[in-house]
Amino acid sequence: MPITKFAIPEVIFGNGSVKYLAPCAHRLGAKRVLLVSDEGLAKAGWVHMVQDLLQEGNLECVYFSEVDANPRDWQVHKGAEVYKQSGADVIVGLGGGSAIDAAKGIAVIVGNGGRISDYEGANMIMRPLPPMIFIPSTAGSGSDVSQFCIITDQERQLKMSIISRSLVPNLSIIDPNLLATKTRELIISSAVDALAHAVESYVSRLASPFTETQAMLAIQMIINNIQEAVEARSPEALTNLSIASTAAGMSFSNAGLGIGHSLAHSIGGRFDVQHGLVHPILLPVVMSYNLPSCREKMARIGSCILGPRFCSEEMLAQKGIEHLQRMFENFGVAMHLRDILHDDSQLEQICRMAVPDACTLTNPRDTGWQDLLTICEEAW
Amino acid sequence: MPITKFAIPEVIFGNGSVKYLAPCAHRLGAKRVLLVSDEGLAKAGWVHMVQDLLQEGNLECVYFSEVDANPRDWQVHKGAEVYKQSGADVIVGLGGGSAIDAAKGIAVIVGNGGRISDYEGANMIMRPLPPMIFIPSTAGSGSDVSQFCIITDQERQLKMSIISRSLVPNLSIIDPNLLATKTRELIISSAVDALAHAVESYVSRLASPFTETQAMLAIQMIINNIQEAVEARSPEALTNLSIASTAAGMSFSNAGLGIGHSLAHSIGGRFDVQHGLVHPILLPVVMSYNLPSCREKMARIGSCILGPRFCSEEMLAQKGIEHLQRMFENFGVAMHLRDILHDDSQLEQICRMAVPDACTLTNPRDTGWQDLLTICEEAW
Repeated sequence: MPITKFAIPEVIFGNGSVKYLAPCAHRLGAKRVLLVSDEGLAKAGWVHMVQDLLQEGNLECVYFSEVDANPRDWQVHKGAEVYKQSGADVIVGLGGGSAIDAAKGIAVIVGNGGRISDYEGANMIMRPLPPMIFIPSTAGSGSDVSQFCIITDQERQLKMSIISRSLVPNLSIIDPNLLATKTRELIISSAVDALAHAVESYVSRLASPFTETQAMLAIQMIINNIQEAVEARSPEALTNLSIASTAAGMSFSNAGLGIGHSLAHSIGGRFDVQHGLVHPILLPVVMSYNLPSCREKMARIGSCILGPRFCSEEMLAQKGIEHLQRMFENFGVAMHLRDILHDDSQLEQICRMAVPDACTLTNPRDTGWQDLLTICEEAW
Repeated sequence: MPITKFAIPEVIFGNGSVKYLAPCAHRLGAKRVLLVSDEGLAKAGWVHMVQDLLQEGNLECVYFSEVDANPRDWQVHKGAEVYKQSGADVIVGLGGGSAIDAAKGIAVIVGNGGRISDYEGANMIMRPLPPMIFIPSTAGSGSDVSQFCIITDQERQLKMSIISRSLVPNLSIIDPNLLATKTRELIISSAVDALAHAVESYVSRLASPFTETQAMLAIQMIINNIQEAVEARSPEALTNLSIASTAAGMSFSNAGLGIGHSLAHSIGGRFDVQHGLVHPILLPVVMSYNLPSCREKMARIGSCILGPRFCSEEMLAQKGIEHLQRMFENFGVAMHLRDILHDDSQLEQICRMAVPDACTLTNPRDTGWQDLLTICEEAW
């Protein structure tokens, strides 16, 4: 077994746990917090609630909300300016992957200067970041526990993967109550994003027993709870999706992802498509492509999805993939790339741009742009 | 689900990973390291190796080795004096649970002053500790990743449980190569200690999905590898025991333990018995005692040990416990308290002193000293 690393933030998890925000911020030496969030969270009332919690804890709060669904490089630079000019000392990110990734990008610039594109790739951040606390509002991105930060380079129309140990925050406060205001579509796309994190990291070249066990927990809990969360929105099912998303985050942060995410980043950078829409389309096709390189693990995923079956590994793996595909179809979400892209003339370029993404390196099967094109054509 | 916390250090795991010690210490700002270890590690050559690694990394090293198998309060106070007088800035603990717990105790006094007994119990440490890096040399204690520190109060003949978030070190560097010099007896007692951590934390009142998944990984890997590690000492089996011990540490650090450990602490404090000798004797009896309060979970442990069986939960749980007992017997280790204590006149006092131990609080079944006495009599 090669030398492996496992790093996660301190996690506080549970319904109502957001009430610990102010004492946690104090523990990190906070006097004035930069709160990074977005308009959706403000409309749902969560920004106001967090501002109240900070105020009750005698903390000043500077609010930065210029964050798009796929956060842009210039937004990160602007947020860093606000941090510096306001004299803030701790960054709190509240939201889905977009708000939290924006908060991470701001922290990178605050601590290291320069442009966010200077830090694209793995292990490019050399100086420490300000203390960070994240409060995720979706059960999907896992960004609140991960070493990953995805920022769109507006000029290159490209989503940059920035990966560094120092992007793991000091604390992740995960309060499933925040899921109550999410739409059906967002619950589905977040859960399938988390499922893609779990599956891709489980078969990653850098997987270790520590990450595999969290990935399998995530797969099991998503399969067991996604229907009830989507249809009945039961607090218990939403809490379980939140556990799954966190476990998947612990896994992919340390094991990396695969070509499903390379393609999702490339498509998202080019077309500004919401990240979660891509995975129901790509995940089954990518799993089938990877199957020959990780048959035993794909069979274990199949067994986790379907329960134990008396059949070959190949068959069990395929049945598992088919089950996922049917499940996504039954949700009524887009199941073809053509449904969300409308134009196939840029597929080759999307695939060429996906190859150098850091997630390609950890995919279990060697992959060139032609392979990615075959995948995209199958998913078209 | 109640609000739960999950905190572990950054882990670097793998054969040869100890070579990262100096760069890691530099990352924590080290110039002069206090190395805490013991004579056994020195004889095996590991202290010398670590000193060389520090020297090659241009770090000064002050060596403190006055650590007994059950570290004493006065040893901790002496180590703290050495730290302060030498101008050290980072603590490195190298060894089994004893050396690492001594290093933690030293860190507590350095950062907080007073006597180590001032911090007995949960969450009594208020001020920050110096940076800590631990290198475990056994696959058992899990202290290198945990919030626990066990120090013997010499006067009261009592092992104090000190539990705090701040006892989680910055880094745990786990190099299974260090297991190569261990005796057969130490491999067994360490693995059974880790198994007790996994089982007790799995059924703990504070268990969460994050801890349960690590506990189950640990149980599975110990069952699958203990025979080969003990008989053939194969590097792969030793590495797997090391993974298991780390996973069990992640679990019990966050979920707590149970009355098996309350009794082990009480017995160890009174008779200075090596911690690992107690668990093959107590674990099966304690599991049987706890069974009525956590039948489903004990059955899952039984299923993990034996594979799935078509029988009642009660039966599956019992068969699992019996399997463990036979396995311990076959190792030829002491299986009765009388083998290690020689005198039953102090049993009542041992049981009375075990009740206030912090581990009793998280045991799944309410327990008074009379219950503990029944357990000890059964194990006598």
